[in-house]
Amino acid sequence: MSPFVPGISVRIEGRGDGPLAGLTFAAKDLFDVAGQPTGGGNPDWARQNPVPTRNAWAVQALLDAGATLIGKTITDEVSLGILGENAFEGTPLNPAAPGHVPGGSSSGSASAVAQGLCDTALGTDTGGSVRVPASFCGLYGIRPTHGRLNLEGMLPQAPTSDTAGWFARDAATFARVSKTLLSEAIPDTLPTRLIIATDAFGFAEPATAAALEPLLRRLMRLIPDTTHELMAPSGLSVWGRAQRVLQPIEAWNTFREWVERDNPRFAFSVAKSLALGSMSSEADRGWAELMRREARGRMRYLLPPGTILAIPTTPFPAPKAGLPLPALTPLRDQILCLCAQGGLAGHPQVSIPGASVEGHPVGLSLIAARGADALLIRTALALEHTA
Amino acid sequence: MSPFVPGISVRIEGRGDGPLAGLTFAAKDLFDVAGQPTGGGNPDWARQNPVPTRNAWAVQALLDAGATLIGKTITDEVSLGILGENAFEGTPLNPAAPGHVPGGSSSGSASAVAQGLCDTALGTDTGGSVRVPASFCGLYGIRPTHGRLNLEGMLPQAPTSDTAGWFARDAATFARVSKTLLSEAIPDTLPTRLIIATDAFGFAEPATAAALEPLLRRLMRLIPDTTHELMAPSGLSVWGRAQRVLQPIEAWNTFREWVERDNPRFAFSVAKSLALGSMSSEADRGWAELMRREARGRMRYLLPPGTILAIPTTPFPAPKAGLPLPALTPLRDQILCLCAQGGLAGHPQVSIPGASVEGHPVGLSLIAARGADALLIRTALALEHTA
Repeated sequence: MSPFVPGISVRIEGRGDGPLAGLTFAAKDLFDVAGQPTGGGNPDWARQNPVPTRNAWAVQALLDAGATLIGKTITDEVSLGILGENAFEGTPLNPAAPGHVPGGSSSGSASAVAQGLCDTALGTDTGGSVRVPASFCGLYGIRPTHGRLNLEGMLPQAPTSDTAGWFARDAATFARVSKTLLSEAIPDTLPTRLIIATDAFGFAEPATAAALEPLLRRLMRLIPDTTHELMAPSGLSVWGRAQRVLQPIEAWNTFREWVERDNPRFAFSVAKSLALGSMSSEADRGWAELMRREARGRMRYLLPPGTILAIPTTPFPAPKAGLPLPALTPLRDQILCLCAQGGLAGHPQVSIPGASVEGHPVGLSLIAARGADALLIRTALALEHTA
Repeated sequence: MSPFVPGISVRIEGRGDGPLAGLTFAAKDLFDVAGQPTGGGNPDWARQNPVPTRNAWAVQALLDAGATLIGKTITDEVSLGILGENAFEGTPLNPAAPGHVPGGSSSGSASAVAQGLCDTALGTDTGGSVRVPASFCGLYGIRPTHGRLNLEGMLPQAPTSDTAGWFARDAATFARVSKTLLSEAIPDTLPTRLIIATDAFGFAEPATAAALEPLLRRLMRLIPDTTHELMAPSGLSVWGRAQRVLQPIEAWNTFREWVERDNPRFAFSVAKSLALGSMSSEADRGWAELMRREARGRMRYLLPPGTILAIPTTPFPAPKAGLPLPALTPLRDQILCLCAQGGLAGHPQVSIPGASVEGHPVGLSLIAARGADALLIRTALALEHTA
């Protein structure tokens, strides 16, 4: 299945001789491209807004740096989904694991890059939407520090967790694109300290944790000062639950006016998630906000400048496509246990490819202090060179 | 907007010289017609089942009696809806109130009859799906005694409340069709006693209650032994709530396997209703079942053979089409307060046209003892003759 939005065909040449000259990119259909409707993966969304007359900030930044836009990519409906199955537009191919999901919600962007249809692609990550498809498709993917990038022209979902990220097949291209979008040079120095999150590796399926071992050993050779610690002493599942309370509340807040006015069409699972957001209690919300505060404190404590934390990006490789909801729901919840820290605490995270379970990719994630996005890119480059 | 299902064209001539020879009819897209997919108003339902090779019992009964099938009609998705707005197939025209909803879920059947496109049409009624469109479109409509008709080949929703009903523009046609589908002659004698439900008339909008007065006075001339009583001493809203708990639980039970396997597309309001059914507590269900038991006892007490009960079919005429959900939800809940007795207690009910508020129809409903469906048809005939 094509990763591009059905019925949308767009190509915009990059500007001359910028640092990204010669590269091609695609944009998730949550980013505005002037003259094209922003569909958001749902058949009733585009009608809500006039066709944008300006490019989203991230799209324009890549064009200005010389990259050429070659298409808009399929997303889970209004970015509510982590597996990449869209009931209206289809499930983009995961070329690294055919018959398995690509991961979502930035499904088409990951698929397009993994298939070699473009060099990089823009995604968004609220609860894991860049990190998960990067892991499942075997790509480099970044969720930048929350609040760092200009999100103008990007369809929001849960603003306190929303970020814009991107994918690449190799570390060099990943670094080139990151330098442009982070507006920062990639530093020469590596992290001085590595923490391996014992709870996160323990939570992953044993085969996945074992598959990540060689990558982890290479990382430990680069950063000899290594310790093992809990990431979430109160429980990965507790952090996951907090994110699963807060994100649908904010998503409902974002989409409520539209949903109430137009009663739009959704896949059942997407509508149910929004309905749950609309019905959350004040008590649940209050608890989840306290837990977010705790998670932020813990991540800040673990990650002073110069330190990075390693976790499996996902607890397992891509599940089969087309599984029934009772099989998918626990998988989605397990993925969220590892991803929730991103949405809760907002630290930058890079997923690195290079491991696989029975031929299907799984990513190793590195997390740093807020603002230390470029340090993670540096580490990814160094790790590729040690391969 | 056409009342017929987009893309489905069907015509089956009735058999020779039966009692319905010369009549045309349409069938709600919840009834099987051999060789046509049964769509159920949802784009993902038809794929669940092979194209039926037999006609539903009610379709075959009308064909055998000589009526000619001329089309399949739009329904609210899997009959979950009371207003007649289908996000996928459109909102059938209410010719009696253009720009207003036709009522649902048997929206297309009511619309087709009201437009004169056929003489009668099959609908289904679980929580009001024949009665409400009959009221809004100015038609005769019947919800027969629960359990009386053979529902083979009809897509179920909530089996303890599901019935098959039908519409007509005039009492004579209504009686002809009813005689065939009830397999019973229409009696010569009228009811001996009339109860006017004071709570139900009090619950209706004053303009609607006033509009029904002339019909009610004609009815009182036909049945001089008239008393005024409460229908639901524990509260119309309490009965409404019981039905609003039980029906989604049963609907979830009916559709769960499909929803969990295929994650189908729905309008938000439909998905939310199913999601609520999936999350109901045992305590809610237990309470609602007790209340159903009370409602059954009350209706049995009120309606010995020979007695009929009069209520407004709906508390108001058809709302405007395209209202936002926060405006629609309370209207739907108010309608349910008057309709819930049907789903809870299963007595036969006929909605009679002839009243209007500012030109928009509202129906007068007559309810009888279980099994006394034909007595209601007799009353409708007599009432038309007194006009």
